[in-house]
Amino acid sequence: MGSFSFRLIANDGNARSGEIETPHGRVRTPAFMPVGTQATVKGMYPDQVRDTGADIVLANTYHLMLRPGPERIAALGGLHRLMNWPGPILTDSGGFQVMSLSALRRIDDNAVTFRSHLDGTMYELTPERAVEIQLLLGSDIAMQLDECVKLPAERADIERAMHLSLGWAERSKRAFERAPAGHALFGIVQGGDDAALRDASARALTAIGFNGYAIGGMAVGEPQDVMLRILDEVTSLLPERAPHYLMGVGTPDDLIEAVARGMDMFDCVLPTRNGRHGLAFSRFGPVNLKNARHANDPRPLDDASACPAARDYSRAYLHHLVKANEMLGAMLLTAINLAYYQELMSGVRAAIAAGRFEAFRAETKEGWARGDIAPA
Amino acid sequence: MGSFSFRLIANDGNARSGEIETPHGRVRTPAFMPVGTQATVKGMYPDQVRDTGADIVLANTYHLMLRPGPERIAALGGLHRLMNWPGPILTDSGGFQVMSLSALRRIDDNAVTFRSHLDGTMYELTPERAVEIQLLLGSDIAMQLDECVKLPAERADIERAMHLSLGWAERSKRAFERAPAGHALFGIVQGGDDAALRDASARALTAIGFNGYAIGGMAVGEPQDVMLRILDEVTSLLPERAPHYLMGVGTPDDLIEAVARGMDMFDCVLPTRNGRHGLAFSRFGPVNLKNARHANDPRPLDDASACPAARDYSRAYLHHLVKANEMLGAMLLTAINLAYYQELMSGVRAAIAAGRFEAFRAETKEGWARGDIAPA
Repeated sequence: MGSFSFRLIANDGNARSGEIETPHGRVRTPAFMPVGTQATVKGMYPDQVRDTGADIVLANTYHLMLRPGPERIAALGGLHRLMNWPGPILTDSGGFQVMSLSALRRIDDNAVTFRSHLDGTMYELTPERAVEIQLLLGSDIAMQLDECVKLPAERADIERAMHLSLGWAERSKRAFERAPAGHALFGIVQGGDDAALRDASARALTAIGFNGYAIGGMAVGEPQDVMLRILDEVTSLLPERAPHYLMGVGTPDDLIEAVARGMDMFDCVLPTRNGRHGLAFSRFGPVNLKNARHANDPRPLDDASACPAARDYSRAYLHHLVKANEMLGAMLLTAINLAYYQELMSGVRAAIAAGRFEAFRAETKEGWARGDIAPA
Repeated sequence: MGSFSFRLIANDGNARSGEIETPHGRVRTPAFMPVGTQATVKGMYPDQVRDTGADIVLANTYHLMLRPGPERIAALGGLHRLMNWPGPILTDSGGFQVMSLSALRRIDDNAVTFRSHLDGTMYELTPERAVEIQLLLGSDIAMQLDECVKLPAERADIERAMHLSLGWAERSKRAFERAPAGHALFGIVQGGDDAALRDASARALTAIGFNGYAIGGMAVGEPQDVMLRILDEVTSLLPERAPHYLMGVGTPDDLIEAVARGMDMFDCVLPTRNGRHGLAFSRFGPVNLKNARHANDPRPLDDASACPAARDYSRAYLHHLVKANEMLGAMLLTAINLAYYQELMSGVRAAIAAGRFEAFRAETKEGWARGDIAPA
C-alpha cells in the first residue's frame, strides 16, 4: 500500500500534469473521475471502467450512508471490495447531496440534520461523522463536509456558508488525524461567485493545510464565464504542490478550460447520465442518437475510437436501442462517453508533457466546431 | 458458410445430444437459446452472451417487424451484423407476440391483421410475409407462422387453430423455397392439451417435411404435468433425425424433464426477465437477492460457478444493487442466470454422452432440493 503523494510532472502555461499516489494505486492528472454514486458506475462493469482509462472513481457518501450504510460496508471489507474496484476511490462528504436531495434539512454550526429521501429516516451529519463515514468506506481521498450554495445567491448567504465551511474544514482535519497512514483529506474552497470570499476561503484553507484543495460550489447554475473567472482568481492562491480538484464539473469544454487554469481533477455525471439518455460525446462534439438521421446509418459512431462500443456497433443500432429503451443502449453510450472523457484527459496529459497544450486545446475545439461527420 | 444439418451424437433413454450446423456456425444440443427480443439480449453485451456458453440466440420477428423494420435491417446487412452477433440466430414467426401483445387482432385463413402496440399502425401478417421477414433478417432458422391458443381452451378453438396452423405450415414451406441455400424452416406442432390433435398435427407436419419440428403452445398457462404428458405423446411421432424444439420453455426443471422426453432446443425469457427482477437461478435452486438475509453476506452467489458475475461480487453487493435498482444488478443477475442455464445444458450434454443422464437429472434435482447454501 502506497501513501498519498502528488508529483508534478510538467507545466505548460497554467496547465499541469502530474501523478497522485494513493493506497490503491496511481492517478494520472489531469484526471476525470467517473461517478459511482451508489457504489457502481451506472451501467458499467468495474473492469470496463478501468478499460476506458479511468484510474480513480468517485462515490457519494450521502447515498452510501443511507444505503447500504457505512458500518455495513466496513464490515464487508470496505467500498473497494464491495464494488470490486481495486483502484483509488475518492468520496465526497455528502454535503452536496444533502442540500440537493434530502428533505427537511436544517443547518447549524454543529451539523446538518436531514430526512432521507429514501425512507424518511432523520440523520445528523457533522464534519466529524462525515470523516468517520469516509474512513469506514475506506476512501483513498476524503472530502471535508462543506455547505454549497446554489447560484445566484445573496452575498450574505454565500459568506455565511463559506465561513461555516471553513469551521468545518478545521474540525474535519482534526477528525482525520485518526485516519490510517497514507489516506488523504481535501479542503474545499467556497465563496460562490464572489472573488473576495473565494480568496479568503483559499487562504484560510491553505493555512489549515490539506493534502489537496477542491473548488466547490461551481456548476451550480452559473454561466461558464463566471466559473472560469473564479478559477482564474483562485488557482494562483492554491498551493502549487497539491492537487487542485474542480468538483462536479463538467462538459468536455469545461474540462479543457479548467485544465488551462491549473485544475488537476474532475468528476461529473454528464458522461454517464447523458449516455443513459441517448447522447454521445465525441471528438465531433455531442451526437444525439435519438435523432432519426441515424436510423439507416451503418457507420459506427467513431471508427477511430479506442472504445469497442464506438467501433463495433452501427449508429443505426445505437439509435434502435435508444428508441427501444434497451439497457444495451445505455450501456454502450455510457462506455462511449466515459472512454471519450478519458481519451480527452489522456490527450491533455500528453499535450502538456509535450508543451503543446494550447495547440491541443485549439485542435480539440476545432473538432467539436466542425461537428459530426456527414454520411458518405 | 455451412448448410443446415443435424447430427445425433448420443442417445440415453429418450434424451439425445447432437449438433446442428447452420450458416453461422454450430449449435450443440440440447441447447438453450437466450432471448434477444429487440435484437439484444437485455443487459448483455453480445460477447458476454457467447461467454456464458450460448451457441445461438433467438430474436422476435414481431418486435423487429415493428421496429426497426425488416427492410431496414436487411439494408443494414442483416440481423447478425446489426446486433454484432456472428453466431446462429433463430427467429420466431411473430405469431405468438401478435396474440399476446398487439391490439385489435383479427385472424382469418389468409392472415392475421393487428394493430402495433407501439404506435397503432395496422399490419397484416401472412405465412408468406412471416417467411419473407425472417429471410430479410437473415435468420439461420426460421419458424412457420402459427396460431397459439392460451390454455385452458375449448377443444373446438384448439382444433380450429391447429388446422389453421397446418395450412399456414404448407404455405410457409412453399414461401421458403426461395430461401438462400442452407437456411432452415421449422414446422410447429399445435393442438393444445389434446393428445389426438397434437398427434394429427405432428403427423401432418412430418408429411409436409421440415428441417426441424417445434412444439408450440406450451408454457401458456398449463401445469407442468400437462406439458410433460403432451411431450411424452408427441415426441415419438417426430422424425428422429430432425431437431425437436420446445418453444418458450422454461424453468431449469422444465428443461431437464423435456430433455428426458427427447427435446433438443429451448428458449425462454425466465433467466433474463427474472435476473432483472432480482432472482438468480443456481445449482441450489432459485435465490431471491431482494431478501434481507443477503444484506450482510460477504460470500459470492456461487464461488464454484464458471461465471465471473457469480464469483467476483458478494451477495451483499448484489442485494444492494437490486434494492437500489442499479443497472449493474440486472446486468450481473442476467449474466449469472444465462450462465447457469448454459451450465445446465452443458451438464446435460455431457451426461447424455456418458450414458448417465438419469444420474445427472437426479443429482441436479437434489441440489435444487437442498436449497441455497447456508451462511458460515
